[in-house]
Amino acid sequence: MTADAYKTLREEAYEANIEIQRRSLAIYTWGNSSAFDPEKGVFAIKPSGVDYDMLTPDSMVLLDLDGKIVDGRLKPSSDTKTHMVLYREFSGIRGVTHTHSPYAAAWAQTAKPVPVFGTTHADHCAKEIPCTGFMSPQAVKNDYELETGNLITETFKTLNLDPVLINMILVAGHGPFTWGMNAAKSVSNGVILEEICKMALFTVTIDPDAKPLPWHITRKHWERKHGPGAYYGQK
Amino acid sequence: MTADAYKTLREEAYEANIEIQRRSLAIYTWGNSSAFDPEKGVFAIKPSGVDYDMLTPDSMVLLDLDGKIVDGRLKPSSDTKTHMVLYREFSGIRGVTHTHSPYAAAWAQTAKPVPVFGTTHADHCAKEIPCTGFMSPQAVKNDYELETGNLITETFKTLNLDPVLINMILVAGHGPFTWGMNAAKSVSNGVILEEICKMALFTVTIDPDAKPLPWHITRKHWERKHGPGAYYGQK
Amino acid sequence: MTADAYKTLREEAYEANIEIQRRSLAIYTWGNSSAFDPEKGVFAIKPSGVDYDMLTPDSMVLLDLDGKIVDGRLKPSSDTKTHMVLYREFSGIRGVTHTHSPYAAAWAQTAKPVPVFGTTHADHCAKEIPCTGFMSPQAVKNDYELETGNLITETFKTLNLDPVLINMILVAGHGPFTWGMNAAKSVSNGVILEEICKMALFTVTIDPDAKPLPWHITRKHWERKHGPGAYYGQK
Amino acid sequence: MTADAYKTLREEAYEANIEIQRRSLAIYTWGNSSAFDPEKGVFAIKPSGVDYDMLTPDSMVLLDLDGKIVDGRLKPSSDTKTHMVLYREFSGIRGVTHTHSPYAAAWAQTAKPVPVFGTTHADHCAKEIPCTGFMSPQAVKNDYELETGNLITETFKTLNLDPVLINMILVAGHGPFTWGMNAAKSVSNGVILEEICKMALFTVTIDPDAKPLPWHITRKHWERKHGPGAYYGQK
Repeated sequence: MTADAYKTLREEAYEANIEIQRRSLAIYTWGNSSAFDPEKGVFAIKPSGVDYDMLTPDSMVLLDLDGKIVDGRLKPSSDTKTHMVLYREFSGIRGVTHTHSPYAAAWAQTAKPVPVFGTTHADHCAKEIPCTGFMSPQAVKNDYELETGNLITETFKTLNLDPVLINMILVAGHGPFTWGMNAAKSVSNGVILEEICKMALFTVTIDPDAKPLPWHITRKHWERKHGPGAYYGQK
Repeated sequence: MTADAYKTLREEAYEANIEIQRRSLAIYTWGNSSAFDPEKGVFAIKPSGVDYDMLTPDSMVLLDLDGKIVDGRLKPSSDTKTHMVLYREFSGIRGVTHTHSPYAAAWAQTAKPVPVFGTTHADHCAKEIPCTGFMSPQAVKNDYELETGNLITETFKTLNLDPVLINMILVAGHGPFTWGMNAAKSVSNGVILEEICKMALFTVTIDPDAKPLPWHITRKHWERKHGPGAYYGQK
Repeated sequence: MTADAYKTLREEAYEANIEIQRRSLAIYTWGNSSAFDPEKGVFAIKPSGVDYDMLTPDSMVLLDLDGKIVDGRLKPSSDTKTHMVLYREFSGIRGVTHTHSPYAAAWAQTAKPVPVFGTTHADHCAKEIPCTGFMSPQAVKNDYELETGNLITETFKTLNLDPVLINMILVAGHGPFTWGMNAAKSVSNGVILEEICKMALFTVTIDPDAKPLPWHITRKHWERKHGPGAYYGQK
Repeated sequence: MTADAYKTLREEAYEANIEIQRRSLAIYTWGNSSAFDPEKGVFAIKPSGVDYDMLTPDSMVLLDLDGKIVDGRLKPSSDTKTHMVLYREFSGIRGVTHTHSPYAAAWAQTAKPVPVFGTTHADHCAKEIPCTGFMSPQAVKNDYELETGNLITETFKTLNLDPVLINMILVAGHGPFTWGMNAAKSVSNGVILEEICKMALFTVTIDPDAKPLPWHITRKHWERKHGPGAYYGQK
C-alpha cells in the first residue's frame, strides 16, 4: 500500500489541526488532532511540537493501532498513544482531539465533572461531562500516554458511559479529550466542550449553589438532536 | 401571492441571522432570528442546523402563524414554534432572536432574574430582566417549543410586564429570547442583553452583596430613551 | 468667527470618538468624547445616538460653556452638560470621555472606589479611583446631566482631589468619566481605567482579601511618570 | 566596534517587542523586551515610552552590563536596570521580557505564588510560579529598577530556584518578568505565564479549595519536555 492511499486521511487530520488554531483552542503547539481509517487500521496525527502554521498534510504521521509508524518523516505527537487507545477501545470513532483550551483545562484542574447546568450542555451531552481520577504513580512510570488512554476508557467503563453518546472527557489535572465520527467532529466537540465549560464557570460565579437542569428538560434537549426521534437540522 | 412578495422579509431575516454571527452571539448554528410581516401574517426564519456562512435570503423559511410553511425548501429552525407564539401573543413585535450567548445563558442557568445594577441596564429596561420558571414535565412532553413560547408569554402576564417596554427574557436553564419592532432590533436587543448580563456577572464578582440601582435613577435613565419625554438620539 | 475656525477641534473630537470604538470601550453608541478649546471657550462633542461608523468631523456639535450651540446640524450627546460642567470646573482639561466599558461600569455598579492594587494603577493614579455617591432624587429631577457633572466635581472637592493628577472617576451605578489635556488623552485614560478595573476584578477574584499596594511603592511608580522627578518616556 | 556589529541583536530585540503587542501582552507601551549577547557583553532594549508601532530595529538602545549606553539616540526603557541585573546574575539567559499582562499582573497584585494546578503549568515549570515579597522603602529610595532586579535574584536564591529551569517570576504588586535563551523565548514564556495565570484564576473561581497537581504527575510532565529524558518535539 503506497503513501498515496492515505491522502484523504492526511488531509482530514491536517484540516482538524488547523481548526484547533482557528477556533483558538490552543496557543503554540498545545493541541493535536488525529483521523482514523478503521478499514486500513491506520490513523494520521500531528507531528510533535510543530507550529500549526508549519503544518502540511504531508507532515502528518501515519501509525497503526500497535503504534508502529506506517509513514512519516517526523515524530508523532507525544499524545499519540492516548489517541491509539481511544481508537482501539471506542468502537466507531474516527477522530480524536486533545487541547489545553482554558475553560475546559480549568475544570480539569479542579478534578470535578461539569454538571448539566443548561440546555447548551444537554444538547450535546445528557450527563455530566465526566472527569477521570488522577493517574497512579505506577501508571505514570509505566507508559504515561498509553495509561492516559486507559484512564479514559476505564472511567467510561466504571461510569457505564457510551463513547458514542458522550464524546468528551476531562483528564484530571490535565485537560480535555474529545472524539467523534471524524476528525472535524472531534474538534467541534472540543469547541463545544470549551463553551459548555465557560458557561458552567460563569454559572457558578453568579450562583455557587446553582442546581443542575431538571432531568426531563435535559432528556428532551438531548433527544431533539440525537436518537430516533431527533428533529434538529435538515435530516 | 408569489414568493417574491416576501423578498424584503427574507432579506431582513437573513441579515439578522448574519448579525448573530458577526456580533459573536452564537457559535456554529446556536442562534436564530426571524422577521414578521403582520399584514401578511407571515414570518421568515432561519432553516434548522444550517451554518451562518451557508445562509442566503432564499434559504429562509416562510411560515404563517399556524406554523404552516408558506414557502421554503428547508426545514425551519427547531425553535420556530416559540417565535410563532411570541408573534401571536406579543402584539406589535416584528422580529425575534434566540441565541446561547454565554453571559445571558449563564444567568438563565442560575434561573434568576438579572437585577438592575446600573444605568446600562436601565437605559434599555426599567425592571429586572425576567427569568421564567422551569417547564413542567407535562409541557415538555406536549409540544416543547410551543410551550417555551407559552412559558415566556405567561411569565409576562404573571409579572404584569409589557413586551413593548421589556423586549428580553431568560428562559430558565436555557438562554435568552429577545424581540423588537424589526428583526435587526431583536438582534441588537440580544447584544445589549449579553452586555447587561456580562456587567451584572462582573458586579456580583466584585461585590456579592451589590444592591440594585435606586429607583429614581433607573426611571430617569429609562425615560431619557423611552416614552413621551425621551431626548436621546436625533428624533 | 466662521465654522472653519473649529476645523481642528472637530477633527480632534471626531478622532477621539472613533478611538472609543477602535479600543472596544463601547458598543453601538454607548460612549462619547469631546474636545475643548479654552481660548475660544468652545467644545466639540459627538452627536446623540449616532453610530461611530456614521460620524464625520463635520457631524460634531460645537457648544459654548453655557450650553449654547455654536455650530452643528445635529443634537449633541445627551451627556453634553456633564462634559460642560467638567470644562467649567476642572481648569486645564481639554478633553472628556464617557463610556460604558464593562469592567469600569461593573465597579461603578458596586458604587465602590477601586483600591490601588498594583503598579499598573499607581503608574496612572496614586490614589483609589474615586467613585461618586448616588445622585439625590431632587438632583435627578432638576437637570440630570448637569447634576452628574456637579456630582463629579463635588466628589473631587470633598475628597480633596486634584483633577490634573487624577483624571478619572466612576459615577455610582453608571460608569466611567475620564479627561485629559486633549481629547485623545481622555480616551486613552478611559482605556487605562478599563484595564485597571479588569486587573482589580481579577485580583479580588483570586483573593477577596487582597491588600492595597504599600504606599512607598505607589508613590514611587507615580513619581516615575509624573511630576518634576519623572523619568519615564523620552522627555 | 561599529554599530553594525549589533544588527542581529537589534533585530532580535525589535522582533520580541513587536511580539509583545501581537500576542496582546501589553497595551500602549506597557511592556519591554531585550536581547543579550554575552560575548560582547551588550544588550539591546526597547526605548522608553515609545509605541510599538513606532519601533524600528534602529530605535533599540544598546547598553553594557554596567548600564552604560553603547549606542542609541533614545532613552532606554525605564526598566533597563532590572534587565541588566538579570543578565548579570542569571548565567546563560539571553532575553528578558516584562509586561503588565492582566492575569499575571492580577496574581502579582495578590502577592501570591501560582500553585501548580495542572499539566499546562507543569509542562513549563515544575514548581509554583514564584512571587517576590514587597520591596522595602529603603530599596525603593535607593535605585528602584536595580533593586527590582535584586529582589528577583534574591528570591531565586532564597527559594533555591534555578533560573534555567524556572524562567518566570511575579514581582509582588507589579507584574511578570520572564526570560529565556533568547529574546523570542522570553516573550513566549510571557505568553505561557499569562495562560497559566488565566487557567489558575479560572480554577480557583470554580473551586476556591482546588488542590495542586500530585507531584508524580507534575514531575512526569516536566520531564517529558525538559532534561535528558525529554521526548516532546522533534529533537
